[in-house]
Amino acid sequence: MKLLIVNPNTTASMTEKIADAANRVRNATTDIIAVTSSMGPASIEGYYDEALALPGLLLEVAKGEKAGARAAVIACFDDTGLDAARALAHIPVLGICESALSATAFIAQRFTIVTTMERSRLPLEGLVHRYGMAGRCNVRAADIPVLSLEDPQSNARDRLRNEIAAALREDKSEAIVLGCAGMADLTMDLRREFGIPVIDGVAAAVKQAEGLIALGLSTAKRGAYATPVHKPYLGALTSFAPQDLLAG
Amino acid sequence: MKLLIVNPNTTASMTEKIADAANRVRNATTDIIAVTSSMGPASIEGYYDEALALPGLLLEVAKGEKAGARAAVIACFDDTGLDAARALAHIPVLGICESALSATAFIAQRFTIVTTMERSRLPLEGLVHRYGMAGRCNVRAADIPVLSLEDPQSNARDRLRNEIAAALREDKSEAIVLGCAGMADLTMDLRREFGIPVIDGVAAAVKQAEGLIALGLSTAKRGAYATPVHKPYLGALTSFAPQDLLAG
Amino acid sequence: MKLLIVNPNTTASMTEKIADAANRVRNATTDIIAVTSSMGPASIEGYYDEALALPGLLLEVAKGEKAGARAAVIACFDDTGLDAARALAHIPVLGICESALSATAFIAQRFTIVTTMERSRLPLEGLVHRYGMAGRCNVRAADIPVLSLEDPQSNARDRLRNEIAAALREDKSEAIVLGCAGMADLTMDLRREFGIPVIDGVAAAVKQAEGLIALGLSTAKRGAYATPVHKPYLGALTSFAPQDLLAG
Amino acid sequence: MKLLIVNPNTTASMTEKIADAANRVRNATTDIIAVTSSMGPASIEGYYDEALALPGLLLEVAKGEKAGARAAVIACFDDTGLDAARALAHIPVLGICESALSATAFIAQRFTIVTTMERSRLPLEGLVHRYGMAGRCNVRAADIPVLSLEDPQSNARDRLRNEIAAALREDKSEAIVLGCAGMADLTMDLRREFGIPVIDGVAAAVKQAEGLIALGLSTAKRGAYATPVHKPYLGALTSFAPQDLLAG
Amino acid sequence: MKLLIVNPNTTASMTEKIADAANRVRNATTDIIAVTSSMGPASIEGYYDEALALPGLLLEVAKGEKAGARAAVIACFDDTGLDAARALAHIPVLGICESALSATAFIAQRFTIVTTMERSRLPLEGLVHRYGMAGRCNVRAADIPVLSLEDPQSNARDRLRNEIAAALREDKSEAIVLGCAGMADLTMDLRREFGIPVIDGVAAAVKQAEGLIALGLSTAKRGAYATPVHKPYLGALTSFAPQDLLAG
Amino acid sequence: MKLLIVNPNTTASMTEKIADAANRVRNATTDIIAVTSSMGPASIEGYYDEALALPGLLLEVAKGEKAGARAAVIACFDDTGLDAARALAHIPVLGICESALSATAFIAQRFTIVTTMERSRLPLEGLVHRYGMAGRCNVRAADIPVLSLEDPQSNARDRLRNEIAAALREDKSEAIVLGCAGMADLTMDLRREFGIPVIDGVAAAVKQAEGLIALGLSTAKRGAYATPVHKPYLGALTSFAPQDLLAG
Repeated sequence: MKLLIVNPNTTASMTEKIADAANRVRNATTDIIAVTSSMGPASIEGYYDEALALPGLLLEVAKGEKAGARAAVIACFDDTGLDAARALAHIPVLGICESALSATAFIAQRFTIVTTMERSRLPLEGLVHRYGMAGRCNVRAADIPVLSLEDPQSNARDRLRNEIAAALREDKSEAIVLGCAGMADLTMDLRREFGIPVIDGVAAAVKQAEGLIALGLSTAKRGAYATPVHKPYLGALTSFAPQDLLAG
Repeated sequence: MKLLIVNPNTTASMTEKIADAANRVRNATTDIIAVTSSMGPASIEGYYDEALALPGLLLEVAKGEKAGARAAVIACFDDTGLDAARALAHIPVLGICESALSATAFIAQRFTIVTTMERSRLPLEGLVHRYGMAGRCNVRAADIPVLSLEDPQSNARDRLRNEIAAALREDKSEAIVLGCAGMADLTMDLRREFGIPVIDGVAAAVKQAEGLIALGLSTAKRGAYATPVHKPYLGALTSFAPQDLLAG
Repeated sequence: MKLLIVNPNTTASMTEKIADAANRVRNATTDIIAVTSSMGPASIEGYYDEALALPGLLLEVAKGEKAGARAAVIACFDDTGLDAARALAHIPVLGICESALSATAFIAQRFTIVTTMERSRLPLEGLVHRYGMAGRCNVRAADIPVLSLEDPQSNARDRLRNEIAAALREDKSEAIVLGCAGMADLTMDLRREFGIPVIDGVAAAVKQAEGLIALGLSTAKRGAYATPVHKPYLGALTSFAPQDLLAG
Repeated sequence: MKLLIVNPNTTASMTEKIADAANRVRNATTDIIAVTSSMGPASIEGYYDEALALPGLLLEVAKGEKAGARAAVIACFDDTGLDAARALAHIPVLGICESALSATAFIAQRFTIVTTMERSRLPLEGLVHRYGMAGRCNVRAADIPVLSLEDPQSNARDRLRNEIAAALREDKSEAIVLGCAGMADLTMDLRREFGIPVIDGVAAAVKQAEGLIALGLSTAKRGAYATPVHKPYLGALTSFAPQDLLAG
Repeated sequence: MKLLIVNPNTTASMTEKIADAANRVRNATTDIIAVTSSMGPASIEGYYDEALALPGLLLEVAKGEKAGARAAVIACFDDTGLDAARALAHIPVLGICESALSATAFIAQRFTIVTTMERSRLPLEGLVHRYGMAGRCNVRAADIPVLSLEDPQSNARDRLRNEIAAALREDKSEAIVLGCAGMADLTMDLRREFGIPVIDGVAAAVKQAEGLIALGLSTAKRGAYATPVHKPYLGALTSFAPQDLLAG
Repeated sequence: MKLLIVNPNTTASMTEKIADAANRVRNATTDIIAVTSSMGPASIEGYYDEALALPGLLLEVAKGEKAGARAAVIACFDDTGLDAARALAHIPVLGICESALSATAFIAQRFTIVTTMERSRLPLEGLVHRYGMAGRCNVRAADIPVLSLEDPQSNARDRLRNEIAAALREDKSEAIVLGCAGMADLTMDLRREFGIPVIDGVAAAVKQAEGLIALGLSTAKRGAYATPVHKPYLGALTSFAPQDLLAG
């Protein structure tokens, strides 16, 4: 059973980390297909990067569905493009923020997302609100660039630890959600260090996706996620006209 | 891997239906342990029945955890006793309403719960609010007693179908959530009939539980769900003192 | 006119304190009937204790109504069992948290509940939200076990005072609500010490109950609080079948 | 014990009806002092009338407090001037909408206010929101002028009955709140006719006021309701300068 | 094109400052008519002053409309009397708090209102909620009397600066809204000093008013703002009967 | 003074209609620069079209700012790309939904957006919530394709009229907001026909933009809208790297 995971930024080392996190928790019969977007930003830090990551992301979702994937995961914690991908695809599409919050809500009443840069804090607060977790979930930024997590020389992990400690002390949080796909490899170490549940969205999304597949559920096509209307598309995005992208 | 499912009412035929729904979607390595509560009401219809179902439910959760269950599902759509069971147990505890709403939120923006009796409508609206789905999810009652679903002569299924049709027409819902564990066997027929996603909470909870186990997550014990304090318990419930129930 | 007050824990010394608080504010024609639950936990600290206090509480409400009580007060600040008792009884049933918040809302715009243990903070935040006071009312825990309030040697009162001072300074609260029935005897001293309104839920509930009786109001039986359906109850709770408990 | 009730409109026949409603439910030791405002509109229908009723209302509250009243009730369902009166007075000040909703919340989960004119519907929806009852309480207008309730020839009562019937049928309400002080005399008849709790705000406010007095509570003066600052007042309202009005 | 700005307090020096702020941003074709209320408080600090400012304010709005003003601005940050003035007038009526928040929402996601006295903080929080900005906008009080802003010897401006610095540091605000019409002259200096957008409500309201006029929009008269009903008004406010005030 | 208006779909006839609406209300000194996106969908109907309209939209905003525009309006009622454009640009960027709701809130308490297709209804409900208008503003779809508004033979205008009539009758709305830039030319006719305020977002945005410019305000760059970080962009979107797009 193929499960597509799209890294919507163009940094392949992050895709590897994401694939590792997915493979650690997948079912034996699940085949993780992790792909890196071929167009757009090297990392997603704020609204502008989110917007430009969309065409590359949607292309990979369309290709993946045609190649037989049974569900798709968008592996950026901003859940960028989630609604557009759901309208496009017939298979279930999952965001990693959405998946992480959904899993955490089963085991904790109050929790904190610790993300990278301050400019991502408000977009994530928007997601927390959208997913119905306002009042249960704070968002904190450790003030570290996304790609510094790829650099073993940076002090990014120390800043992350300090922010987790502050969340436990000041937010009285019961669990911590890692607010960037690039933090997935730190999950187990942080659980051991802090003695609390630490949730990575990539792993959470893999299990949610497997669950939806087993339940025989796919995206409802009756309302907000109705299949896009066929129409002309102009310029560099001509090939993204729904009739073309969906057809092949 | 043992997965405990507690039917918190005392009607064994409903437990069988629940076990069937669970077995249809479980992973190959999951061993479904479905038990019927030995104390309390024959069906749960409203707040009073919910309250009296608690001791029997908590007893089964404690026994199940000691017998090696890796997670527990409370198979009543009122999610009765969820917080108490989470405080008591160390394994994850899942409600079927919570699980159904959580799964549906990944595939639809607007949906409707169709439940049995009017007196259950407001408790479910309370859950919808608690789980952050207010504004996305209506609740409708088909005005049928819970146990009429066990009776092939009743018109319960027709009333249920009528209410689903009304939800699609009037609520413009994109998916339907079945609001009673006793409806689990109707899921596939209703999907075919209406051509939309129909979600049963028992099946959804099985997949969420398997997912949490695979993620290595259990209930946070740092805040609202801290282990109960040891203290005397009096009267018919003496054996429920936490130190006794948790010890064996 | 008989007014039933049920202490839903099994500690008689706390019932005495509750009765004193009630008698200090009752009308001349009100006869306070304060009873201690005969089954369940010695104190209610968190969700598990709440759940196990329910049968004993409901039994006393049923007995009280049959003995002619005109209203019932549940004297635990978690308002445990409130909905179930309202479904069971025909007389009005009042929680002391609900009563305290209701009274305070007439005299202050911002206020703080100071309760005992951290594990009770989130359940009380849930009540604050349910009663429509989110945004007006903070909840703080002084980190003291409930029964330490019964012990003149403990430092519980000092911790309580410190937390009240913090609420005035940091929350800019205009009034303080005492978040445990066991604090009822401290009300007048704390008013004098801090020079602000301090509200005890037991006293507040007595006046609300007398008011509802004088208004000729009892619980609406048309929706959420419809009388429980007659049905079999099994095991140690057989006698709680509604037809039995309501009949006598 | 004197309890002041101010009718903030200038129609004395409505004050009599209000006084009757108050006297029917007061304690034996309560002395109802019902006064009619001497300045402003003959009835309060919408925001403009509310605004112009304020000086006359505040004058009566100041006079009443100086004459020894222990609490004041503003007997207009718009709760006009409530915050200003609380800032001015030291005694508790109660609105009848606030009092009615507060009482109803103890006995019903869902209810409907039936008021007079459409133009009062949105101001009352604002109050419902302010008092934390949004989601529990609808507002309906029977489309009748306030003073038509004083006219036995009008069809106002029939329209009111029709709107109550619609609330029970369409809102599934469990109780009805009468949304105008001028409906107070209909309470008992409507309870009998519809067989549900019907709540009049004047009576509710009398009991809430007696309760606050017995609890020894008065308006918190530490924040929003701090005593007005002494300063010059010009023009026709010179005598309303706080130092003058409070002094006598 | 005449644009009426009413200073609802009776301090003429503040009206001058308001007129200056308006003239700095008005269109070339706009004629600013700034008037000082002739009745009521010298400054508006809290609910009581707000209430007593209403008749003088409404009188000026009625006079202004009759004199040909095309829109009216209420130049007190409490937006006192806004609903009543909208019911009375046919021209658009704008509050300066509403206008400031509306403008700021186009350029920032999180911002802070810095106002004068603590007693105005909660009324402004109420407005923030009413205007749909809860969660985006904090309110802070610099603890300075309104008229101290007119006194060059006072330390009011330093306290204001300190509170702005705290907002940037602690609220992580992106922009500052000045919470008193008397601060309008400080806007440019504060922008330069802090290097962020600083918004004055008077200027914002002038541009919103010009915009509404250009769009050909005036107050909807179909619901909440229906023209007041003709009826008798008694006492010192006899001349405020709608039929009289509207007629001339 | 140049004001940029970007039509984010690629249909030039709609841009003309938008330019006309803008020119009807602009100030004499404003120079409307209306441009059509050169890449992406011919109309924006749902989430997928929104996503693919972003690069073309952002390109025009960047070009417009460099060419001296003082503010930019995104002329699609979904406000697509608003956050990304604000992060990219230094000039104010306005959405037409946001602008329309903001203007309407000054003149009506309850209103309805009437949009084109059902699939746009939920995205607009999301905007209504984001802009703080939930509870004040309904959204209705007339079930007409966007481009049918360009076709004089279609029955689109009749369906639009029917939906407006339904909004007045069933929602008791006081004003109507036209939920598509392609409806801008109907504004005046609909005002005359229905006798209520009808608001077009393009015109509203022009006035809001002129207002922000006159106030000297531009997008806050301290938080959510911080300038994008320089980094590599791959594939067909290489030229959208912030350092390139912002530089020229």
